[in-house]
Amino acid sequence: MSMKNYQKELDNWFKEKGWKYWQSLSILARLYEECGEFARLVNHLYGEKPKKDDEKEQELEEEIGDIIYTLICFANSHNLDLDRSIRKSFDKVKKRDKDRFKKIE
Amino acid sequence: MSMKNYQKELDNWFKEKGWKYWQSLSILARLYEECGEFARLVNHLYGEKPKKDDEKEQELEEEIGDIIYTLICFANSHNLDLDRSIRKSFDKVKKRDKDRFKKIE
Amino acid sequence: MSMKNYQKELDNWFKEKGWKYWQSLSILARLYEECGEFARLVNHLYGEKPKKDDEKEQELEEEIGDIIYTLICFANSHNLDLDRSIRKSFDKVKKRDKDRFKKIE
Amino acid sequence: MSMKNYQKELDNWFKEKGWKYWQSLSILARLYEECGEFARLVNHLYGEKPKKDDEKEQELEEEIGDIIYTLICFANSHNLDLDRSIRKSFDKVKKRDKDRFKKIE
Repeated sequence: MSMKNYQKELDNWFKEKGWKYWQSLSILARLYEECGEFARLVNHLYGEKPKKDDEKEQELEEEIGDIIYTLICFANSHNLDLDRSIRKSFDKVKKRDKDRFKKIE
Repeated sequence: MSMKNYQKELDNWFKEKGWKYWQSLSILARLYEECGEFARLVNHLYGEKPKKDDEKEQELEEEIGDIIYTLICFANSHNLDLDRSIRKSFDKVKKRDKDRFKKIE
Repeated sequence: MSMKNYQKELDNWFKEKGWKYWQSLSILARLYEECGEFARLVNHLYGEKPKKDDEKEQELEEEIGDIIYTLICFANSHNLDLDRSIRKSFDKVKKRDKDRFKKIE
Repeated sequence: MSMKNYQKELDNWFKEKGWKYWQSLSILARLYEECGEFARLVNHLYGEKPKKDDEKEQELEEEIGDIIYTLICFANSHNLDLDRSIRKSFDKVKKRDKDRFKKIE
């Protein structure tokens, strides 16, 4: 009951502005770009020669925000329910863990 | 007040299990992998020779879920607030739009 | 004078078969997918819990091959010269290094 | 007999400078970053609202060059043979095509 609000807010904003979501492959390309910027920052902070840099660390939130924003655009343009997305993924991890537990016993 | 719940739920789960989050570069590699699977699916459904495939379309939610799951792991291991992330990204888009409007006038 | 041969070989093969290169955004999506498979393998071998695995290590060459194959497809469909690509990138690194040297003096 | 020369040239350069290749996960992060820049450019030129832009088109070669440069770094640090990489990938495509042909008959 939570990503729904973000999805709705963005959708209202797009409607109000008369904007259309991009086609799927373009949103995917944008996702690639945003993840690349995130990778650059992560490598700068925690990569080969980690640099302590408080200012840059605050940018992590922004970079991840841009990735999630892109995913919301994709989800809205395909009527996907991101709360169900996250729930499915959580359930999968929990199930995988349970199965591992059984094997050990 | 919404991604917070997912972040908390995952963190509780990790604590209960005694799991540790991966190091930053490994989570990044996983993000790359998950996005690659999403790309494969998007290309299959909407790429060069789009295929109508209802079953595959339902997998879109799962693939995006895995991406967000990976981002939550990263956020939790760095004490990032994903609601603030999304808010910042939304604000940026809205601000960019406002500036564009000003220019036109 | 070397990537040229690979580009030519692939182009002849496509012509012979009557195949067309995909549109740019689809090749990009494929690049994403191939890089994701590479990331999965790298994470398996050198990530959080590195696993010594000779068989998997041999797959590294194949995964990188698939990435370069995808780049050749893109280059051919846009008449790009990959030898010039590599030369430009090499020159940039060497130039950057020279500039760094000057600064130190 | 061709990527070999590029691999050797870069390796000599690194030896001469006393540089070391980065660890695998850092090179992977760099690959992500470089591919993201390529994605940005491809989306600009051929995405949602394709823009004819000759200057930008010339940058395509540079962006691909940076990706291949990153792959050469990875290959050198793992003693991979990129000519064999490309050959394996070409063979796979040709084999796949042959199998497809058999099925049709």
